Amino acid sequence: MKLSKLNLETTIDGFLDNSFFAVQPQKSGHRSGLDAILLAATIRDAAKGRVADLGSGSGVAGMAVAQRCLNVNVDLFELNPRMANYAHQSTQLAQNAHLQDRLSVFEADITVSGHARDQYGLLPNTYDHIISNPPYNDESLQLAPSEDKAQAHAMTPDMLLKWIKTAAYIATHKAELTLIMRPANLSELLVALQGRFGSIRVKPIQPVSGVAAILMLVRAVKGGKAPLELLEPVILRDHPPKEDGGHFTSDVEEILRGRACLEL
Amino acid sequence: MKLSKLNLETTIDGFLDNSFFAVQPQKSGHRSGLDAILLAATIRDAAKGRVADLGSGSGVAGMAVAQRCLNVNVDLFELNPRMANYAHQSTQLAQNAHLQDRLSVFEADITVSGHARDQYGLLPNTYDHIISNPPYNDESLQLAPSEDKAQAHAMTPDMLLKWIKTAAYIATHKAELTLIMRPANLSELLVALQGRFGSIRVKPIQPVSGVAAILMLVRAVKGGKAPLELLEPVILRDHPPKEDGGHFTSDVEEILRGRACLEL
Repeated sequence: MKLSKLNLETTIDGFLDNSFFAVQPQKSGHRSGLDAILLAATIRDAAKGRVADLGSGSGVAGMAVAQRCLNVNVDLFELNPRMANYAHQSTQLAQNAHLQDRLSVFEADITVSGHARDQYGLLPNTYDHIISNPPYNDESLQLAPSEDKAQAHAMTPDMLLKWIKTAAYIATHKAELTLIMRPANLSELLVALQGRFGSIRVKPIQPVSGVAAILMLVRAVKGGKAPLELLEPVILRDHPPKEDGGHFTSDVEEILRGRACLEL
Repeated sequence: MKLSKLNLETTIDGFLDNSFFAVQPQKSGHRSGLDAILLAATIRDAAKGRVADLGSGSGVAGMAVAQRCLNVNVDLFELNPRMANYAHQSTQLAQNAHLQDRLSVFEADITVSGHARDQYGLLPNTYDHIISNPPYNDESLQLAPSEDKAQAHAMTPDMLLKWIKTAAYIATHKAELTLIMRPANLSELLVALQGRFGSIRVKPIQPVSGVAAILMLVRAVKGGKAPLELLEPVILRDHPPKEDGGHFTSDVEEILRGRACLEL
């Protein structure tokens, strides 16, 4: 079966100036990139405690947090067995030996409710930071259709609500939740957060200056009461020349090299 | 009664390079300014049909629309009898003679439901453009406390929902609704819009570059189905020198002089 053979082909990609590596599907399934690194950048260097990455894919965002934030343990939760296996392989790479003690992978259904979550390692009142790149984003910066994409596309407003409920369940008091999503999903996200997470900050991500955002980072605090804020946008690239798509802005370049974080 | 005497004192203020004038309370009640002009600027020069200004105060936003958009009629709806009277006085000023045929003022309770609205002139399926600066904003760019402010402060999420329902009632098919509000109220606004207005565009308004937005313009289309967009922010002022608060950016200066609009 040629297709299934292709599905098993992987690449090993370096991130943050090759300070860690991830096993990723070559042609099908979610390949992480800029979005995962921007999401990870929202966790402060000095963060402590436990970090959960909900829907981790091959684990890039969670590993990027572990790479930069030396006082956290990171648990990666992923439903898709093949992607969870890539995440596991990633944590076991020799190049990632410096991270292994602080990384765990759980094959987990994030949509279940109540204590049914516990069987997956989604334990109540446990995580100080929760990050997530819900599978909505696949179209934005990525990739070709595949069966794994089809699964990702099944994400609905109702599923997002279940994810946020799970985030609230595993969060400690005042835990921070950070998501990277498309602006198109802002209404359903704010509805899902109501009564669970507050002190919301929305940071639009523009491809270049002068245009609408293609993505947004949204940070919220469990039980937070501060008013919602619309923050200054991130601008990804200087105005693009015709061919290469433009260079990253210096702020984003620093983030991609693991030299800066992106506080919300 | 010194206080009630003060309450009756008014000023006559020019807008858009003194192309029209508004009677406004000198010390109490809502004095319009930048927010009203930014809101009005969202209506295209070539707009046609009927425009409603919900919660018009002394009528600055609606008059600014009538001044620039020569093919629209503008109806101003205001609950507070004193403010509605200022709006009426404004429309009758000799300096505004060129606008009088296209301006009407209604003392109206925007929160009523069903056909009870009709008694106030809030007629179904009538307006092609609806603009509103809900009284939430009083604190943002304004002014001292007063009884009229106390009324404004009674605005709650439930009242906002009633305003949006009234907007949907008076809107024609595919009518545009534009509001200027604080980011703090984004969640309740998006909830209120759901199922009524879509194709939402949010344009943050930052006091200067590099900081969070203090206000936002939100544009939505009745029955619209396009995804929500987060637009490039408006920057009000160049980085402020210590004393005068900084100059307006050239884009905003053009808007304040009535030479440019602000399409969302």
